[in-house]
Amino acid sequence: MNYKIRCIREKMKLLNMQGLIISNPINIRYILGIPVEGEILITDKENIFITDARYIEEVNGFLTINDEFVIFDSKDISDIDNQGFFQNCENVGFEENYVTFAGYEKIIRKYRIKNIEETEGIIEKLRMVKDEDEIKNIEKACKITDNCFDYLLDFIKIGMTEKQVALEIEKYFLENGADGQAFETIVASGINSSKPHAIPSDKIIRQGDPITIDFGAKYNGYAADMTRTIFAGYIKDEMKENYNLILKIQKNLIKEFKEGTSCKMLARSVENELYLYNHSLIHALGHGVGLEIHELPILSHNSQLTLKENMVVTNEPGIYLPGKYGIRIEDTIKVSRNEPEVLTKSSKEIIVVDKT
Amino acid sequence: MNYKIRCIREKMKLLNMQGLIISNPINIRYILGIPVEGEILITDKENIFITDARYIEEVNGFLTINDEFVIFDSKDISDIDNQGFFQNCENVGFEENYVTFAGYEKIIRKYRIKNIEETEGIIEKLRMVKDEDEIKNIEKACKITDNCFDYLLDFIKIGMTEKQVALEIEKYFLENGADGQAFETIVASGINSSKPHAIPSDKIIRQGDPITIDFGAKYNGYAADMTRTIFAGYIKDEMKENYNLILKIQKNLIKEFKEGTSCKMLARSVENELYLYNHSLIHALGHGVGLEIHELPILSHNSQLTLKENMVVTNEPGIYLPGKYGIRIEDTIKVSRNEPEVLTKSSKEIIVVDKT
Repeated sequence: MNYKIRCIREKMKLLNMQGLIISNPINIRYILGIPVEGEILITDKENIFITDARYIEEVNGFLTINDEFVIFDSKDISDIDNQGFFQNCENVGFEENYVTFAGYEKIIRKYRIKNIEETEGIIEKLRMVKDEDEIKNIEKACKITDNCFDYLLDFIKIGMTEKQVALEIEKYFLENGADGQAFETIVASGINSSKPHAIPSDKIIRQGDPITIDFGAKYNGYAADMTRTIFAGYIKDEMKENYNLILKIQKNLIKEFKEGTSCKMLARSVENELYLYNHSLIHALGHGVGLEIHELPILSHNSQLTLKENMVVTNEPGIYLPGKYGIRIEDTIKVSRNEPEVLTKSSKEIIVVDKT
Repeated sequence: MNYKIRCIREKMKLLNMQGLIISNPINIRYILGIPVEGEILITDKENIFITDARYIEEVNGFLTINDEFVIFDSKDISDIDNQGFFQNCENVGFEENYVTFAGYEKIIRKYRIKNIEETEGIIEKLRMVKDEDEIKNIEKACKITDNCFDYLLDFIKIGMTEKQVALEIEKYFLENGADGQAFETIVASGINSSKPHAIPSDKIIRQGDPITIDFGAKYNGYAADMTRTIFAGYIKDEMKENYNLILKIQKNLIKEFKEGTSCKMLARSVENELYLYNHSLIHALGHGVGLEIHELPILSHNSQLTLKENMVVTNEPGIYLPGKYGIRIEDTIKVSRNEPEVLTKSSKEIIVVDKT
C-alpha cells in the first residue's frame, strides 16, 4: 500500500476513525505524488480516488498496483455508490480546516455519514517530516534560489525600483527550471524594510538603503524560502551593528535545529536574546516548508511541537525599526539527528552593491 | 455610505439579517476597493473593518468619511468587544461557501452569535454586475491580452514547446503593465488540444498542429479571458470545417449577450446546434469574469440566472475530439441593453503561423 496511506491508516486507528475524506488538493498531491483534482476516500475496505475525465489517464498511468488505490471517474458514481462507501464506518474524519461549511453539509448528505469528526491536521502533521524525494525537490528549489541571489548581486543597480528587482526574480525562476516563485517575493528597501511583509513598490533603491529580499523558487511543487538583507552603496554604522547582531543570532541557532529541540524554546531563546538588546521578535522565528510555503511546525512561543529528523524549517530572526529600516536573515534548514543542514547556501556576510 | 455596503444592507433586510460577517478576501477587496486582509462586520449599528498593523495605514488612507467604516486593529479588540458587535442581531449571516468548518465554529464562539445563517452568495451575486471602474480595469486587462496575442503571432515558431509559449505569455504580461496572468495559461498543440484544460507540456509544436491558447492578463486585480486556436504551417480541411463551425456559432451568439437573456437558454442553444453536427459541448458555454477568473453567472444548462447590463462574461464554444484535436474560440463580452461589446478584440479569422 502507498506508504503515506499506511501512515494515515495507523493514525486513524488511534482516533477510532474507520473512514476519512481528504479534499485539500495539497494533501491529495502529497499522498498521490501528482497534482490532480478530486477527492480521496479512505474506507474500512479500500482506498479510493474519485476524479474526472481530465485526470483519469494521468492518475492511472502514475499510480502502481502497490499504491492499492481504486480510481473512479465521478460521472460513473451513483448516489447509491456514494451512500455505500462509508456504510460500515462508525466515525468518518474530514478536514475541518479546509472544507467549507457548505462543503461539510454536502459531504454529510452525499455520503450519508453517521458521525463526522474533526481530524486536527492529521495529514498536515504527517507532512512535517519529509521523505527522500521531497527533500530532493526542496534542495533543488533552494539551489535555484541561491543561483538567483548570485544573479541578483550583479543585476541590482542603485536607482532601480523594488518592483523591477521582484519582477527579475520571477523571470529568473521561470527561465531556470523552477515552476515559478513559491510565494510573492518581498523586495523592501530603505524605510520599507521595516515592514516584515512589505509589497514591492515603485520606490527607487537609493544610496545607503538596506534592501531586504525574501524569496524562494518552487520546484516540482516544493518551496524554498530565503531572506538576505544587502546594502546599496554603503552601510551605516548603526545598521552594521544590528546586522551583525541578527547574523550572530541566526548563525548560532543553526546547531539547535536537530531532533528533539522544542520549537517553543527555540523561539523563546531568540526572543530573550533580542530583548537584551531592546529589540523584540515581532513574528515567528520560523515555519515548516514543503508543498506549502508556510507549513507545520511553526517555530513560535505558542508551539507545542518538537523538531524531528527530516523536518524542513526556516530560521529567520529579524529586527524592525518602524519609520527607519529593518534587517532579516533567513535560511531553509533540514533538521537532523546531529548536524543540521542549511539548504540555502548564499553568503550571509555583509554585501554592498554599488553599481548605478 | 460605501454604495456596495448600501446594496448589501438592502439584501440583508430582505433576508431578515441584522448582521453579516464577510471573510472572503475577494469580497473584501470588492467592497473596500483595495487588497487588504481582515474581516468586515456589518452590524445593526455600524460597518466595521478589523485588520492588523500591516494594513491599518493603507486602509485609513484609502477609505473616506463617506465610506462610513469604523476601522480597528485586531490587537486592540477585547473578547468583550467581540461579544458586543452582534448583541442586538437576531440573525447573522456568514459566507458558507468560503468559511471553513473550523472557521464557522470559531466565528460562533468569538462573536457569541445567537443564530447564524447561510447567505447563498449574497456578495458574489452583487459582484455579477460591474461598475464603471471595474469595467475600465477589465477593458485594460483585455487590451493587454490582445496586445500579447499580436506579439505571440510573431513570437511563435514551429519547433517550440508549448511551455516556451506559455512562459513568454507570463513574461509579456509582467513586462507590459499587468499584475500578471489571471489564471494558468493553456497552450495545447496537436493532440493535446483535445483536452479543454490541458497543461502546457514539453510537446513540440509541429507542422499541421492546431494550437489552442487560452490566456488572460490581470490588471488592478481584474481578469481578462480569451482563447484563440491558431494553426502551425497549414490547416487540414477537416479542421478548417470544424473551425468555421465554431467560429460561426461563437459570432452569431454575440448579439444575444444582452439584458434579459437566460443563461440556460444561451447554453442550450449552443448545445443543440453542436448536436446537429454530431458534437457535444463538454463544458459550460461561459462564465462571469471579474476579480476572479470564474465568477457568477455560469452560462450552462443548470443556470437559473439571466444576463443583466454590465455583467462581463465569456462566450467560449469548443469542439474536442479525443485522441485527435480540439478547437475553442473565446471572448470576454460586456453585456448591454442593446449592443453587447466584445472586449477582447483579437482577430478570429483562421491564422496560420509558419515561421520555423
